[in-house]
Amino acid sequence: MGISFTEKHADTVDFTIQADEHIYSKKSQFQKIDFYKSKEFGTFFTLDDILMTTEKDEFIYHEMISHIPMAVNPDIKTVLVIGGGDGGTVRELTRYPTIERIEMVEIDEMVVRACQKYLPQTASMLGDLRVELFFEDGIKYISGKKEMYDLILVDSTDPIGPGEGLFSKQFYKDCFVALKENGILINQHESPFYENDRMEMLRAHSKIKGIFPISKVYQFNVPTYASGNWLFGFASKKLHPIADFKRDEWEKFKIYTRYYNTDLHCASFALPTYVREMLEKA
Amino acid sequence: MGISFTEKHADTVDFTIQADEHIYSKKSQFQKIDFYKSKEFGTFFTLDDILMTTEKDEFIYHEMISHIPMAVNPDIKTVLVIGGGDGGTVRELTRYPTIERIEMVEIDEMVVRACQKYLPQTASMLGDLRVELFFEDGIKYISGKKEMYDLILVDSTDPIGPGEGLFSKQFYKDCFVALKENGILINQHESPFYENDRMEMLRAHSKIKGIFPISKVYQFNVPTYASGNWLFGFASKKLHPIADFKRDEWEKFKIYTRYYNTDLHCASFALPTYVREMLEKA
Repeated sequence: MGISFTEKHADTVDFTIQADEHIYSKKSQFQKIDFYKSKEFGTFFTLDDILMTTEKDEFIYHEMISHIPMAVNPDIKTVLVIGGGDGGTVRELTRYPTIERIEMVEIDEMVVRACQKYLPQTASMLGDLRVELFFEDGIKYISGKKEMYDLILVDSTDPIGPGEGLFSKQFYKDCFVALKENGILINQHESPFYENDRMEMLRAHSKIKGIFPISKVYQFNVPTYASGNWLFGFASKKLHPIADFKRDEWEKFKIYTRYYNTDLHCASFALPTYVREMLEKA
Repeated sequence: MGISFTEKHADTVDFTIQADEHIYSKKSQFQKIDFYKSKEFGTFFTLDDILMTTEKDEFIYHEMISHIPMAVNPDIKTVLVIGGGDGGTVRELTRYPTIERIEMVEIDEMVVRACQKYLPQTASMLGDLRVELFFEDGIKYISGKKEMYDLILVDSTDPIGPGEGLFSKQFYKDCFVALKENGILINQHESPFYENDRMEMLRAHSKIKGIFPISKVYQFNVPTYASGNWLFGFASKKLHPIADFKRDEWEKFKIYTRYYNTDLHCASFALPTYVREMLEKA
């Protein structure tokens, strides 16, 4: 007999996975952390009973957060990852020999240690020599930093609990200041379909577009997230995600990806009309 | 106290909707038909406990099955819809004043009658004077017909029960013969993520690409379908979905759509690498 994990995608909508084993359950200073093994998704983990990462579909999220900005500016050398405790975002970044330094600031060390033990598929590259880990509050970490990064990736939970400040106006302003003149900010941007996710999507977008000259949103499908229709924000000081897209330069890296490709790059910025309209009004 | 409806997205993955009311439950000659009312999705119905259509997200499926081919050939006059008992596909087609005739062949009259009563949002245009309804087996209906249609839309259930023959090689061959020289076939093409759906997707694609000179697949997000990542096939004798895309001509119809738009048209054919590779090998 296994054990089941249920996430509420909305008040009256449940997504339930029959797991084979509940292999880890601890409360950190910040949140409840659980790891499960399952037939369908392999190992997966949850924070405060919200599904974060599964072995089966994590490639989608991690490729889409990292390769989109790298294909707009292949000269990115210095990256700051905020959150991203499972290490999947860092893993994708380490595939670029041209990246020189990756700082990862994750508030909850217990998440990282558990992922290193139970989810090596995502966490295995955290020991790369270019990576430095900081177990700190990303909001404090970035405050006061000036023109230090080519790229900031906000790989956060939903805006409740420890992730909340990563959706604040002050935080986005600090990101703007911390970015160099070609800098790009990618942030976890929630989803347009269910009411709660949509509200957070709109709040985030209205803040970011008041700060960055270029502020776009792109979509991708994560089967294990509510509605499957998930978004990242692409904000920058100068670079446009499509006008400045360097298709040929990116292809030269010869990085094999399972979800991202250079056709999908432009396509992911073409949003359904109802999403586009909501974002325009935000 | 409400009632809950659960669909198995995979053997160990459940999607559950807390409904307020179970308003209809009957067995037809072909399948079990159930209608529910729910807070999140409005009225929705299921066939053999597989979710078909919800008031909240039906616009996505119905816009994407109809407007994509209409924007490739805006001169389409004669359309055959096979399946599509909820009427949503016909509703979208009736928005084109240029379409002269729509034949809808649905095997199960009880589905249509129940939708007319409980789901007028989709079924309301079935009385349009250009529409003729046939309650027959689509496989028999199309057999022997020659160069009669500009467009055939296969708006079917999954390939189990009454929908099974609509995924057969002979049926696709009959569609080819029944289409005029500019003809387009759109078919419900399942989904790449969960094993069962993926197998049906590959079987359908391998059959169609052996018959039609042009055979492409496009994607869209249906939040209430397994994984959210759903596909339609676009097959034709001559017209290419992107090279022959008539953006300006379609815009002139001034049809307001909530999901489809002319940017999304091309974008929907850009598939994730893992899907593209599976289809190429099929």
